[in-house]
Amino acid sequence: MKTFGYVAQSPEAPLAPFDFDRRSLRPNDVAMEVLYCGICHSDLHQARNDWGWSSYPLVPGHEIVGRVTEVGPAVTRYRPGDTVAVGCMVDSCLDCDQCRRGEEQLCRFACTQTYNDRDRITKEPTFGGYSKHLVVREEFALRVPSGLDLARVAPLLCAGITTYSPLRTWKAGPGSRVGVIGLGGLGHMAVKLAAGMGAEVTVLSRSPDKEADALALGATRLLVSSDPAAMQAAASSLDLIIDTVPVRHDVDAYMPLLDIDGTLVLVGQLGPMGEFSSLPLLTGRRRISGSPIGGIAETQEMLDFCAERNILPDCEMIRMEQINEAFVRLERADVRYRFVIDMASLRS
Amino acid sequence: MKTFGYVAQSPEAPLAPFDFDRRSLRPNDVAMEVLYCGICHSDLHQARNDWGWSSYPLVPGHEIVGRVTEVGPAVTRYRPGDTVAVGCMVDSCLDCDQCRRGEEQLCRFACTQTYNDRDRITKEPTFGGYSKHLVVREEFALRVPSGLDLARVAPLLCAGITTYSPLRTWKAGPGSRVGVIGLGGLGHMAVKLAAGMGAEVTVLSRSPDKEADALALGATRLLVSSDPAAMQAAASSLDLIIDTVPVRHDVDAYMPLLDIDGTLVLVGQLGPMGEFSSLPLLTGRRRISGSPIGGIAETQEMLDFCAERNILPDCEMIRMEQINEAFVRLERADVRYRFVIDMASLRS
Repeated sequence: MKTFGYVAQSPEAPLAPFDFDRRSLRPNDVAMEVLYCGICHSDLHQARNDWGWSSYPLVPGHEIVGRVTEVGPAVTRYRPGDTVAVGCMVDSCLDCDQCRRGEEQLCRFACTQTYNDRDRITKEPTFGGYSKHLVVREEFALRVPSGLDLARVAPLLCAGITTYSPLRTWKAGPGSRVGVIGLGGLGHMAVKLAAGMGAEVTVLSRSPDKEADALALGATRLLVSSDPAAMQAAASSLDLIIDTVPVRHDVDAYMPLLDIDGTLVLVGQLGPMGEFSSLPLLTGRRRISGSPIGGIAETQEMLDFCAERNILPDCEMIRMEQINEAFVRLERADVRYRFVIDMASLRS
Repeated sequence: MKTFGYVAQSPEAPLAPFDFDRRSLRPNDVAMEVLYCGICHSDLHQARNDWGWSSYPLVPGHEIVGRVTEVGPAVTRYRPGDTVAVGCMVDSCLDCDQCRRGEEQLCRFACTQTYNDRDRITKEPTFGGYSKHLVVREEFALRVPSGLDLARVAPLLCAGITTYSPLRTWKAGPGSRVGVIGLGGLGHMAVKLAAGMGAEVTVLSRSPDKEADALALGATRLLVSSDPAAMQAAASSLDLIIDTVPVRHDVDAYMPLLDIDGTLVLVGQLGPMGEFSSLPLLTGRRRISGSPIGGIAETQEMLDFCAERNILPDCEMIRMEQINEAFVRLERADVRYRFVIDMASLRS
């Protein structure tokens, strides 16, 4: 299938128009026209090869909402016209212990990333959602519940599930006290989702400027992390911290905020972290962990959860040709809170 | 009560004989003659003020076995002649949520350390087990089950409970795969206890020299951490790692050994750790945690567990006047695996 999109041809090059082929449908594939694609910080990281594993040409995008245009003969879940979504993975072995328990993101043989990866069968590169069309096996397409504002659904597929999954793993809910570090794409979803689950939410920020925003998103309070007295007063006051900071940073200042057996979960930074002290870990049996997106069933659960409560990200819509400008603004955190590309703006 | 022991008068001074007073018995106190006292690495750290919070004169020792000589009028649990033991703490509030659930080591108002701390009532310094007599409130004295070799019981009170508690917290048992880093006082107990619980135990060591020792202690295998191929082959093969290394170190090499949702528990080093990567945390939802000794009920459970299975540390007995030589040897890990002071060697 001929299609077109936007591509990074090297770490230094700006994204530019690109004509390419999608595979012909296999029996269990669905083809879709992409309607909206969210812009994730990892799109920027991978376009620029910040993690050192980028392969070019690279078509980013893993927060995808589309409409089914065609289905393979073995497809049972979808038919043309259905509204579907695709997140960070498009395949996995579906046979290992992790896949069988619904944790395809933890597949023993590595799930296939939506872009910057290789198809399991043909070994051809995978290309993401900054494109007019996408082909994906039906097991990795999610059903978008009706009634949601489609333009704002896309970021749920990465920012949403990346924060929803650890909130579920560590049992956020009524009576639990959740802290959120970083009020960006992931952080603002963590606040909305944790509040939606009934948890008491504290946003941590270096400055008091974000208080009104934090409260508007559903937080109970803003804790100013640059205020030693406030931090001291908040010692042992949280059960779970979702740390969305997308760069190397220290966690020592945050650990004493956790109560006994509390966990700080890294979801933003993938790679080097600073030195740390074992003192808050030993004295309070506190934990540092991390969490990668979520499984397909959990992602569907998250979409349904958001539909029931009308929880959606705050988005700024852009046109496809504004992508390079959006990357610059993303890098200085100049967006509240997630860019979404209206793919109708993409011309052949 | 007049007594005597060995003291550090400054970070630089060798330990030397010391005459001092113990408090007169309060209604709920028991007095004991100390029979044996284990030498913990933290005795050395605190004698030398390595952690920066030592107060002098400092009488170390928190692995204590003794015989009750006298009891206060309100004491109901012990009577003169009973064999008892005292570990790292001698008091706590006994009223907060943590104390009420039997986690006195996590007391909201801080448990009172056996030495280098202050009595909750008189604010006098606490002095440890390198001494002829000890006075402690009965709630913090443990009952030593009959039939155990008393000379080898003492190290259970710190090295034993410090490794037993995380093994219980993270549910080591039949079917679970436990790694142990560091084959010293704590490490060799971790191996014996985990094997006693029915877990499969892997000892991690930089060199293959320790294989025979590891197997003799109950391990299934030795994994040589300096062998990249062996480490790669052991990826995702452990559910829990007890990390007993008592100095600053990196954990990155060990994290990939953990399976999904696995935990590395720091029990040896209290303070600075190296930089770390979030990659193994995010990709496998792995956790880094720590654990401090255990509560009184759990410590009693551990003593009873060891008595049922005759699990005891491997000890080298020394006389009190050999303490400075023992400290030097401890610093170069020249002991298999725990020094115990025969307090009968202590003369007034």
